Amino acid sequence: MEFLVEGGVTTPAGFTVGAAASGIKRENELDVTLLYSEQACEAAALFTRNQVVAAPVIVDRRTLADNDSRIHAVVANSGNANACTGAQGLQNSEEMQTVAAGALGCQPNQVLVLSTGVIGVQLPMEKINSGINSAAGDMSVEYGPRAAEAIMTTDTFPKYAAVQVELLGGMITIGGMVKGSGMIHPDMATLLGVHTTDAIIDSATLQACLRTAVDQSYNRISVDGDTSTNDTIFLLANGAGGVPVADTGSMALFQEALNSLTRYLAQQVVRDGEGASKFVEIIVSGAVNDQAAHKIANTIATSALVKTAFAGSDANWGRILAAAGRAGVPFDLAKTALWAGIVEPQELQLLASGTPTAYLEGDAAAVFAEPEFKILFELQQGDGKATVWTSDLTHEYVSINADYRT
Amino acid sequence: MEFLVEGGVTTPAGFTVGAAASGIKRENELDVTLLYSEQACEAAALFTRNQVVAAPVIVDRRTLADNDSRIHAVVANSGNANACTGAQGLQNSEEMQTVAAGALGCQPNQVLVLSTGVIGVQLPMEKINSGINSAAGDMSVEYGPRAAEAIMTTDTFPKYAAVQVELLGGMITIGGMVKGSGMIHPDMATLLGVHTTDAIIDSATLQACLRTAVDQSYNRISVDGDTSTNDTIFLLANGAGGVPVADTGSMALFQEALNSLTRYLAQQVVRDGEGASKFVEIIVSGAVNDQAAHKIANTIATSALVKTAFAGSDANWGRILAAAGRAGVPFDLAKTALWAGIVEPQELQLLASGTPTAYLEGDAAAVFAEPEFKILFELQQGDGKATVWTSDLTHEYVSINADYRT
Repeated sequence: MEFLVEGGVTTPAGFTVGAAASGIKRENELDVTLLYSEQACEAAALFTRNQVVAAPVIVDRRTLADNDSRIHAVVANSGNANACTGAQGLQNSEEMQTVAAGALGCQPNQVLVLSTGVIGVQLPMEKINSGINSAAGDMSVEYGPRAAEAIMTTDTFPKYAAVQVELLGGMITIGGMVKGSGMIHPDMATLLGVHTTDAIIDSATLQACLRTAVDQSYNRISVDGDTSTNDTIFLLANGAGGVPVADTGSMALFQEALNSLTRYLAQQVVRDGEGASKFVEIIVSGAVNDQAAHKIANTIATSALVKTAFAGSDANWGRILAAAGRAGVPFDLAKTALWAGIVEPQELQLLASGTPTAYLEGDAAAVFAEPEFKILFELQQGDGKATVWTSDLTHEYVSINADYRT
Repeated sequence: MEFLVEGGVTTPAGFTVGAAASGIKRENELDVTLLYSEQACEAAALFTRNQVVAAPVIVDRRTLADNDSRIHAVVANSGNANACTGAQGLQNSEEMQTVAAGALGCQPNQVLVLSTGVIGVQLPMEKINSGINSAAGDMSVEYGPRAAEAIMTTDTFPKYAAVQVELLGGMITIGGMVKGSGMIHPDMATLLGVHTTDAIIDSATLQACLRTAVDQSYNRISVDGDTSTNDTIFLLANGAGGVPVADTGSMALFQEALNSLTRYLAQQVVRDGEGASKFVEIIVSGAVNDQAAHKIANTIATSALVKTAFAGSDANWGRILAAAGRAGVPFDLAKTALWAGIVEPQELQLLASGTPTAYLEGDAAAVFAEPEFKILFELQQGDGKATVWTSDLTHEYVSINADYRT
C-alpha cells in the first residue's frame, strides 16, 4: 500500500474536478466545486443523524434511493449550509443538480449535492449557478487540492490524500477530500467528505466498506452521536481502472486502504480543529466491550474541562477521571489506571488502582506540554478498546466561534 | 413568603457556623467551615451520579445510612476535593469527622463532610485539622456569608439566601449556601449546597422535598446526567423553630419555599459561571413530555457552539437548531418555531415552521447583545416543557480553566 499526501479525489483514474470563486465567501475564495466522472459511479453515502437535516441531505438521500449505481458528479458549495431553509432550500438544492447536470451533460439525478456554512440563509442561486458553470468550464485531474480548498469553511488548510494498493487484478487507487472545523461539538454544518476510487465494486459492497471505514475514522473524532445538519460522507467507484474488488483478499486490501485513507483525513480534521494547538490521542482499554470504551473515550475527548487543561499544558488528570466517570458506563475506580506518553501511551503512569502514583509533576507537565501526546485509561473489566482523537479548547476557538458570522 | 438575600444557613433558628483560613487555598482565604446545630437534625442528601466518587461522598453515604436523623454538623473544605485519593482519602474524610466532632462535642457519625477543589491530591490534614479547630473556636449565627465564602473555589462571589414562610403552626425559615463554578461541564469537583431549616420534618419527607426542589433548580443548570466526583446537596432540619411541616397545606408551602430558595441559588451559580458574561434562559415547549423537553434544552444549553455565539452576541440561531437536532429526541423541523426575548421569551420570532421569519437582523442582534435574555423553542408535539439556565462560553472561561492549577 502506498500512501500519497497529494492529489485527492482526482488521483483515481477517470475523475476530474473544477472549482470556482462564486462570491458566497470572500472575494476570490473558492467556494464552488464540481467533481465529474465520465464513467457512471457506484455510490455509497453516510449522512448526519441529526433531526434537523439540511436540504442537500434530503435531496441526496432521494437521489441515491432512486439511483445509487449511475452517479456521474458531485456539486458542492461552501459558505452556506442550505439548512433550515424550507421548501425554497429543497428547490435550490435541486437547481444545483440541474445546473451541474446541464454543464456536464448528464442527468440531474446523477448529481449529488453538498453544502456547508451558515445555517438559515437561502443560497444566493445566481452566484452559485455562475460558479457551477465556471467550474465546469475549467475541469482538470490536477485540481484535487483546489476542490478540497473550495469546500473549506473555517478550515485553515485543505485536506486531501490518496492511497494505492495492488490487488490480484492490478493496482487500484482511492482518493479523498474532507472539510471539518468546529471540533468540540461538530454540530455546525461541519463534516463533508468525498472519496473516489477507480476500482470496480458494487454500491452495496461499497456501502459496507464505507460504514466500516467511517466507524474507525470520522466517527472517532466526533461526540457520541453528535451530528450536524449537513454531515455527509460519499464514496464513489467508477471502475475506470478496470480492476475488480471481488475476492476476499482484494476486499480486505480495499478495506484496509480505505481505512487508512479515512483515518488520515479524520486526523487532519482534528489537527485543523478550530483554534487547536494540540493533537491528543485518547485510548480507553479494558472495558466490557468496544462500545463502552468508545463512550468513555468520547466523553473524555469532548469535555470542555479536559480540553482547556490540554490548552493550558496542565496535567490535570482529575478532569479526565471525572469525565470518564460521567460517561454512563459503570466501572470500579479502584481498578483503573491512567498513563500518558508522547510516542507510546504507556510512558508515564499517573494513576494505579485509582490513586495517584508517585510520578514527578515535572514529568507529567512535560508530556502535556507537547503538541502531540497520548492518554491511556485502563479499566480492567474486559477486552473492550477504543481510540479517539481530539484537540484542545483554546482562546482561539472562542474567538473563531464568537465571531463566526461577523 | 419572604425572600432574604442575606444570612444563609444560619438564618433558621439553632444553626451556627465558623470559618477559617487554614492555608489550603491562598493565604488568608477562608477554606474551612463548620456548621453546627445543638439540636440533632433530620437529614436529606443528594449525591453525584458519577462513577468516580470522592471520599467525602462515600463517607457521607455511609454516615447517613446509619444515622439520618441525628446529624449535628457539617464540616467542609475548599481547595482540595479529596477525590481519587484511595484508602488514605477515606481515612482523611473520617478524620475530618472525628476532629469536627471533638471540637463540637458530638459523635463522628453525626458529622457530614464536604470537600471541593483539585482532584487527586491528598488533603493536608495538619492544616485542615487546625482550620477545623479554629473555626470551632469562633462560631456565630452571623457567619452565614463567611461560610458561603469558605466553600468557594473559582466562584467570584459567595452564594447564600434564606426564605421565610408562614405555616399553620407559625413561621419557618429555610436557608442555604452553594458553590459552583465551571458551568459548561460541571464535572470538576463542582456543586456543593447546604440547606438548613428550623422546621420540624422527618428525614424521609425531607428527602422527597429535596429531590423535587433539586429537579427544578440544580438539575436545570447541569448537563444531562452530568455530575462531578463531589457534587453534594444537603438539607438539614433541626426543628428548633418548633413548627411542624405536617398537614398537606404546610407541605406545599414548605416545598414552594424550598423550590424558590434552590432556584435562586442555582441561578446564582449560572450568573457566576466561570467567565460568564451572560445569563440565558432556554425554554423548550411542545415536546412529547417534560423529559424530552429537558433533554433538548440541556443540549442547547451546553453546546459549545451555542455558548460561544452567546459570547459573541451573535444571533446565530442555526446553532440552536443544530444542537436541538442532536439531543436524541425525534421532532419535525417543519413544525418548529423559535423566539428570543429580553423580558418575555416571545418578543421576537426568528423561526416559523422550521424556516426563518422576515425578522430584522438588528432586532435579533439587540436581544443577543443583552446580558440577560430568553430563548423559546417550540416543537408542537405535546405539552412537555422545560426551562434551563446557562451562561456563555468566553475567553475568560478558557483562561480560568487552562490555568486552574497554576
